[in-house]
Amino acid sequence: MSRVVFYTATTLDGFLADPDDSLDWLMRQEQDHQGALNYEEFIAEVGAIVMGSTTYEWVREELARVGEAWPYAMPAWVMTSRDLPGIDGADVRFARGSVREVHDAMREVAGGKDLWVVGGGDLAGQFADAGLLDELITYIAPVALGAGRPLLPRRLDLELLEATRNKAFIAARYRVVGPLAEDRPA
Amino acid sequence: MSRVVFYTATTLDGFLADPDDSLDWLMRQEQDHQGALNYEEFIAEVGAIVMGSTTYEWVREELARVGEAWPYAMPAWVMTSRDLPGIDGADVRFARGSVREVHDAMREVAGGKDLWVVGGGDLAGQFADAGLLDELITYIAPVALGAGRPLLPRRLDLELLEATRNKAFIAARYRVVGPLAEDRPA
Repeated sequence: MSRVVFYTATTLDGFLADPDDSLDWLMRQEQDHQGALNYEEFIAEVGAIVMGSTTYEWVREELARVGEAWPYAMPAWVMTSRDLPGIDGADVRFARGSVREVHDAMREVAGGKDLWVVGGGDLAGQFADAGLLDELITYIAPVALGAGRPLLPRRLDLELLEATRNKAFIAARYRVVGPLAEDRPA
Repeated sequence: MSRVVFYTATTLDGFLADPDDSLDWLMRQEQDHQGALNYEEFIAEVGAIVMGSTTYEWVREELARVGEAWPYAMPAWVMTSRDLPGIDGADVRFARGSVREVHDAMREVAGGKDLWVVGGGDLAGQFADAGLLDELITYIAPVALGAGRPLLPRRLDLELLEATRNKAFIAARYRVVGPLAEDRPA
């Protein structure tokens, strides 16, 4: 059974981006690209990806700014209630349905490979709410921001599966257990 | 030279306590009390402690609730603009001054030992603002809360010095570098 994984970087205080959606704090950190839980090994096992509309718009504008092509070879779902432009050469499928419907559609094309929830945090939270998020893999950057886009705006218990230093980062892998123990019916 | 250390537990998403100041999510986690960066070894090197009034009130109420005595042998400063009750048998010094004045007073009694900033996050931030916070040592619990008392509500660069798994937690030690690189004058 393939995993549904929220793979992302975060600040130590739990932000995916600063209030202006800047990732400057992230881009300047050193990492070993062959190290623990690295992106290259992760993406090689991914058969479909999904992101929220804010994340998609950020990626689209970044690619336009730097003049690069869409980097994902596998089908990508974008959960949005808005009409958004596509990207040349990208297999992007806009979806208005529930995360469960999108999840099922992703499974059908993923050929048994993992599904990547790219972000943002609320989309990962929606997958967790539906009991569909298996793991969180995160690179914790040595930065506090105090404000910004939250990592995972939910009350959830996790289980630490791996934790390794990777240069400036802590690379950590968690199993998503479910709602916080305190919030579960007795 | 002794260190000024913010030693605390946090959720993975950067909260010290939930919105009701509950630490239930923390108390039920397993840890190796002799493991990396453990409290016993840390406190043995501490000569004075400081906390904010909210933290003090929380500690005072918890001690009353469970019927336990003040656990700190070293002098404790409480930064407050309010009149707060003391605790029998506790060397508590209420201070209305700047963190620098309190820091200097703590140094005088600490006998060359470390100073512990107990919390909350904003007090640690005030020490960082004044350039007086050397290290952050934190036990990262496998929990997301989505809301609560923030770990360190500032924009700061850190440097990862140590990261080790301790049972349910990641135990991590950081040097406080200073304001975020993006915010420093060129």
